[in-house]
Amino acid sequence: MSLLSETISDIQSLDERAMQAARERQSQLTKPQGSLGRLEEISIQLAGVTGQPRPRISCPVVITMAGDHGVALQGVSAYPREVTPQMVLNFLRGGAAINVLARHVGARVVVVDMGVASDFAPDADLISKKIAFGTRDFSQGMAMTRDQAQRAVEAGIQVASREIDNGADMLATGDMGIGNTTPSSAIVAVFTGRPVAEVTGRGTGVDDAGLARKVAVIELALAVNKPDASDALDVLSKVGGFEIGGLAGVMLGAAAHRVPVVIDGFISGAAAMIACGLAPAVQPYMIAAHRSVEIGHRVMLEHMGLKPLFDLDLRLGEGTGAALGISLCQAACKILDEMATFGEAGVTTKDE
Amino acid sequence: MSLLSETISDIQSLDERAMQAARERQSQLTKPQGSLGRLEEISIQLAGVTGQPRPRISCPVVITMAGDHGVALQGVSAYPREVTPQMVLNFLRGGAAINVLARHVGARVVVVDMGVASDFAPDADLISKKIAFGTRDFSQGMAMTRDQAQRAVEAGIQVASREIDNGADMLATGDMGIGNTTPSSAIVAVFTGRPVAEVTGRGTGVDDAGLARKVAVIELALAVNKPDASDALDVLSKVGGFEIGGLAGVMLGAAAHRVPVVIDGFISGAAAMIACGLAPAVQPYMIAAHRSVEIGHRVMLEHMGLKPLFDLDLRLGEGTGAALGISLCQAACKILDEMATFGEAGVTTKDE
Repeated sequence: MSLLSETISDIQSLDERAMQAARERQSQLTKPQGSLGRLEEISIQLAGVTGQPRPRISCPVVITMAGDHGVALQGVSAYPREVTPQMVLNFLRGGAAINVLARHVGARVVVVDMGVASDFAPDADLISKKIAFGTRDFSQGMAMTRDQAQRAVEAGIQVASREIDNGADMLATGDMGIGNTTPSSAIVAVFTGRPVAEVTGRGTGVDDAGLARKVAVIELALAVNKPDASDALDVLSKVGGFEIGGLAGVMLGAAAHRVPVVIDGFISGAAAMIACGLAPAVQPYMIAAHRSVEIGHRVMLEHMGLKPLFDLDLRLGEGTGAALGISLCQAACKILDEMATFGEAGVTTKDE
Repeated sequence: MSLLSETISDIQSLDERAMQAARERQSQLTKPQGSLGRLEEISIQLAGVTGQPRPRISCPVVITMAGDHGVALQGVSAYPREVTPQMVLNFLRGGAAINVLARHVGARVVVVDMGVASDFAPDADLISKKIAFGTRDFSQGMAMTRDQAQRAVEAGIQVASREIDNGADMLATGDMGIGNTTPSSAIVAVFTGRPVAEVTGRGTGVDDAGLARKVAVIELALAVNKPDASDALDVLSKVGGFEIGGLAGVMLGAAAHRVPVVIDGFISGAAAMIACGLAPAVQPYMIAAHRSVEIGHRVMLEHMGLKPLFDLDLRLGEGTGAALGISLCQAACKILDEMATFGEAGVTTKDE
């Protein structure tokens, strides 16, 4: 049995008893019932994920995966491909947005090379799971082989397992890869059947001509590859990316270990679609941090039934939105765990 | 010259040079320009508020003000009035939602009795600015005298000044007062001219009959008092509350000291309308943390031109949304201050 099949079969449904205990406690805390809205919902979800009636998050880890894309050579991005490895080095030195926001919320950042198109000097802080030096241009054929797709997902499962073994009690996903809104738009188009133009945005900031080229390239890729929406590994291999596969693996690995996983924006959303395609039972383990500016992201979230926590007009990736989402999840858990009950505080309830 | 007039005349416009410096730095940080959306905007606003090109927030303080309302005796709330002092004691013991969320974001909570209808045992942590033992029932006449209204606002200015003198570099507002969505709905109806029913919600959770009673009471109050929308002190005295006046004072005091102030939900929003009515120049010093469930809150925010950072279906008050907003403001400042530039990180820019 492959690591992938084993992981999928390990994913259980949420713990209803823990959720019920959390729900009951929420109703006894010194506030009108339901008045903390999404924070209450999240606390109950996290109880179900972890099996703990009063879950705590003390060791959150952001996993930021990088990969390059053959299709980037088609002029679908505003930035040249060399920026992918440059930004990986920026992550390792702590100067990128994800480093700043992860520090702010007390999370560690784990950087993974899933398939950057260049070599890195050995670095203890960089996990190498390189499947290849970038995907192939998917407008000409498959982005990767089916075997590579499975290996990418399994690498993500391994990374998640290692972090959880080391104490991580919440994972968050992030991405880096010049050109990677293009495969992400392709993926959402395949799974939802929506026209490419409706789910394709400007990424890091292409102009009108760039956007038209991007839509045309994706339409061509879908025509050339004919991905099968009922087979997520087929979709990943034909129009995906190594970091997208890796992140899908992180989500599956988290769920198999009953660890909640906070999903970042559009690229993480594409990974979430792959993960849900492989194992629908993974969905309740996910918390969608935010809705990004990318127009396809809203479609994605609706398709998966995920309700984002916030919308701050972010479109950076790296895990930046997910990092902010970690803090809200922690806040939700602390409300459930630390607030006084009506009885403890001697406060009159509504019904008395 | 009164403290109120003096404070109003001390409010300057935002520092354009600091904002321009912040804008330029944002454009050099290692991310596509604008890709951090609202975080970038907030960082620039905070530069303008503080006059610092790279502002830092190291000592945020949530000021939670409590007051009682004569109109609560008309059955407009789901909770009895004794809950106001009970919750004040809960704040002082650290068991309320605001304590939990303030601890989470590293903020101190300052609790102020602006006009609770009962006595408290002396407590070093409770600031007493009691104007009276609750307002009068405003469906029968003015909620308070004009002199009391001014004293409430000035008490808020004093509390803000004291905290700023003690090192606070960001203030956030919160409220406690059984019945206080009723004056808040009255205030938004007066300033916007919208029908009472369109800006009146269920507060802590009244049923349909309670909601109908609440709307009728507010309509009666407006007919009896005829508040003058062009005179914010008149509005406050006729249909306001002591904690609402105090919070308006906190906002004016913060702005006069060039300290940003994070506004919580519906009751803080009503206070913001009073503050903006007294001194329109205070608005740029405000950050609206969230949009609450209360239907009048959206109308309020639009009227003041404030765009909330998030919507988590909160409707608790106390400063809970504002506390979460503090953390986002800090994140925004850290992005501006701590991220590497393209030059520092050796990352290729879009234009090269």
